[in-house]
Amino acid sequence: MSEPAIPEVTWTRKDLVGIADLSVEEIELILDTADSFQEVSQRSIKKVPTLRGKTVLNLFFEPSTRTRSSFELAEKRLSADALNFSGSGSALSKGESLIDTARNLEAMAPDLVIIRHQHPGVPHMLAQRLESGVINAGDGAHEHPTQALLDAFTIRQHKGRLAGLAVTIVGDIEHSRVVRSNIHLLVKMGAQVTVAGPRTMMPAAVEKLGVRVSYDLDEALTDADVVMMLRVQLERHGQSLFPSTREYFQLFGLTQARLAQAKDDAIVMHPGPMNRGVEISSAVADGKTSVILEQVANGVAVRMAVLYLLSLAQQGDG
Amino acid sequence: MSEPAIPEVTWTRKDLVGIADLSVEEIELILDTADSFQEVSQRSIKKVPTLRGKTVLNLFFEPSTRTRSSFELAEKRLSADALNFSGSGSALSKGESLIDTARNLEAMAPDLVIIRHQHPGVPHMLAQRLESGVINAGDGAHEHPTQALLDAFTIRQHKGRLAGLAVTIVGDIEHSRVVRSNIHLLVKMGAQVTVAGPRTMMPAAVEKLGVRVSYDLDEALTDADVVMMLRVQLERHGQSLFPSTREYFQLFGLTQARLAQAKDDAIVMHPGPMNRGVEISSAVADGKTSVILEQVANGVAVRMAVLYLLSLAQQGDG
Amino acid sequence: MSEPAIPEVTWTRKDLVGIADLSVEEIELILDTADSFQEVSQRSIKKVPTLRGKTVLNLFFEPSTRTRSSFELAEKRLSADALNFSGSGSALSKGESLIDTARNLEAMAPDLVIIRHQHPGVPHMLAQRLESGVINAGDGAHEHPTQALLDAFTIRQHKGRLAGLAVTIVGDIEHSRVVRSNIHLLVKMGAQVTVAGPRTMMPAAVEKLGVRVSYDLDEALTDADVVMMLRVQLERHGQSLFPSTREYFQLFGLTQARLAQAKDDAIVMHPGPMNRGVEISSAVADGKTSVILEQVANGVAVRMAVLYLLSLAQQGDG
Repeated sequence: MSEPAIPEVTWTRKDLVGIADLSVEEIELILDTADSFQEVSQRSIKKVPTLRGKTVLNLFFEPSTRTRSSFELAEKRLSADALNFSGSGSALSKGESLIDTARNLEAMAPDLVIIRHQHPGVPHMLAQRLESGVINAGDGAHEHPTQALLDAFTIRQHKGRLAGLAVTIVGDIEHSRVVRSNIHLLVKMGAQVTVAGPRTMMPAAVEKLGVRVSYDLDEALTDADVVMMLRVQLERHGQSLFPSTREYFQLFGLTQARLAQAKDDAIVMHPGPMNRGVEISSAVADGKTSVILEQVANGVAVRMAVLYLLSLAQQGDG
Repeated sequence: MSEPAIPEVTWTRKDLVGIADLSVEEIELILDTADSFQEVSQRSIKKVPTLRGKTVLNLFFEPSTRTRSSFELAEKRLSADALNFSGSGSALSKGESLIDTARNLEAMAPDLVIIRHQHPGVPHMLAQRLESGVINAGDGAHEHPTQALLDAFTIRQHKGRLAGLAVTIVGDIEHSRVVRSNIHLLVKMGAQVTVAGPRTMMPAAVEKLGVRVSYDLDEALTDADVVMMLRVQLERHGQSLFPSTREYFQLFGLTQARLAQAKDDAIVMHPGPMNRGVEISSAVADGKTSVILEQVANGVAVRMAVLYLLSLAQQGDG
Repeated sequence: MSEPAIPEVTWTRKDLVGIADLSVEEIELILDTADSFQEVSQRSIKKVPTLRGKTVLNLFFEPSTRTRSSFELAEKRLSADALNFSGSGSALSKGESLIDTARNLEAMAPDLVIIRHQHPGVPHMLAQRLESGVINAGDGAHEHPTQALLDAFTIRQHKGRLAGLAVTIVGDIEHSRVVRSNIHLLVKMGAQVTVAGPRTMMPAAVEKLGVRVSYDLDEALTDADVVMMLRVQLERHGQSLFPSTREYFQLFGLTQARLAQAKDDAIVMHPGPMNRGVEISSAVADGKTSVILEQVANGVAVRMAVLYLLSLAQQGDG
């Protein structure tokens, strides 16, 4: 249970609320630190004492399997003590305000608070009011910074860099916190980002974020180094933004034939959970170019890195 | 991770079912032990090996954020292994009796069982039947002993003593387990207790518990050292016991103006979750005299003390 | 926290999906290993470092109190890191397929996956597709191997052997995964098994499994060494397979009078949760010959043994 070789760090940020706040150097530091932690998950004994005796609160006001379990695993592998809360059954259901719940939880002296919430801005508000470090695990359609960081980590593993890569992101651009965080990160790091999707799912003036917009998937995929497919959130808006899932697949679903427009060594990503046959064919999802399961594995290492770095700022050692 | 300096103790009680059972010496021993444990939550490494390898079952048959998380945190900071059960999804929903569920859980050799239940007397029944130590985390409108202990701990921190203090408790006296445990404790320790609230929320013959009764908040607050506001349980009886929350606030809500009746150095307490603008104004809740968040912080230390003392009795070392 | 004296083992199986797959030697090895682990639960410090830094996923798609908590406790007492998932609130509710959920979880590099699922065959499918070790914690009416192993462990403690014993199993033979696993195990180990119950609860051609069938409880109990009562699953089929619980009790409920048909030193078992007054009288359930609570206690030791043995195969040390 020896500590991994962690880079000499200068990290002073108490919270990770969004990618928009981070500098290029901070993003690189997180990715370099994640490199060191990735090795821990491959050991026979997958545990280091790095956060021993630290308390982490996991506040998930929206259901989540992969993000919640990825954070929980990162916490356990760092030897932190974790406390879990979900929206239902909490004091909130007794009419207490979110800020009172948060203050009460803070009175118990947690070191870090992980929060997922349906309303954008909630992690930001908590970060301002709490002394604990706050990590945004997804707020409405706003940001999901650790997802963008694990995506970047995965791209860097395969391509050795982010700068200069052609990255195409496909799907519901307007309602996705994943795409928003990814655009912030990729543009900052010098990638060329194209977003593609139906007009009903494209936010107004998205070009101002520094991306190219396309409404034609074949055109958007041409010469891409990275193809990032987004989940169609069937359970949220269902049929209202497109006539049918079959039509969606015909226009914006990723198939092997379409993928041939991209570079030969292009990789295919998806934040999960996938709708096979809606936004992606099973052949592509399970194909050689898919790095979808690597994204999941990398998520644990990236979250270990973020937890570690924020805990440094907590101790005033950063 | 050194052990705190815990007082030399003589503790023989297997269970903590109610304050009514405790002697003055036992109450003082818990509060003194909590003093020692409070320091642990302020360390950088918030963990001691005191209950390492001990198993604690958390049985919460009523929803709870703060009491459950306070116990869980106390268990983790003492290095105990904790198992959580809630009412739903348990064998009880398959029609098993509570006592069979408890016996089955006991067969797994837990050292301590924490129970919250909607029916008064359930913790007492379990304590009689189980060899494990049993801690009542709230039973119906009966008792909530660790809440009264953390309230007493908080008062002692600010006033240096309990004996001789004028304590005014305001709200739904009849349906509150918090007030019942607090009256038992405060009267035992020599405080002068006044209870105030609407006639519809005042139990018959409450004077027999050794308290003064008032139906006028201004009168009840006069020269108080401690003001303890109770939660109006809107989700339980709602509008039936009073015409409206606005009228409740006008008659029994604590405002800065009303608080002026109390002593200059009076402290304001609330067990949470608060209904701001119903039983307490935001100005008072967040004001200088409020010790509400300290109560939450102290809860962890007091529960660590109770878990530690009961575990001594389990080992026959007491 | 010293390690128990574990037998020198040769175990190569990655998964425990069903008793049907196990050899006599493998069953004996599990029971012998459980002997060693049982001592841990009787220590003052109930914990060994055996699975330190190993990750265990508990996937319970059906509600469970005793099996889930027994596994969780076994994991904690072996110092494993455990992650819990239930059916609701998971990605499955977003329409993801079970196999995608499993692959995603596997990407996080768990060492072992415990699964309970309403559909028979799900643990088998996971075992084939995942590199992690998979333990079936109950799949539909198919198998529940750790239950049969803890039953065998309990019988062996009382009788010193399994071979040659007369074991009578009573109740809903058709819909019980417990009885299926028990028949496989007991027949393999050389016991004489009689199954008894109403005709509506008896599967066709059950004799082919090597058991004797009886529709008369008194006859079935005659000279039994072990009587194993099954739970009537009132919440599943209710009144459809028998006219009333009273009539069921009259025909197939175990009473002291009926138990007199069995051998003087016969033991009475039940996998729980019990319906007192339906399949068993309280006098028998709580009587001297009942080993029902011992079954629960033994479940933790048997599950510790299974977790330990499968982790050996994971490491390639087996």
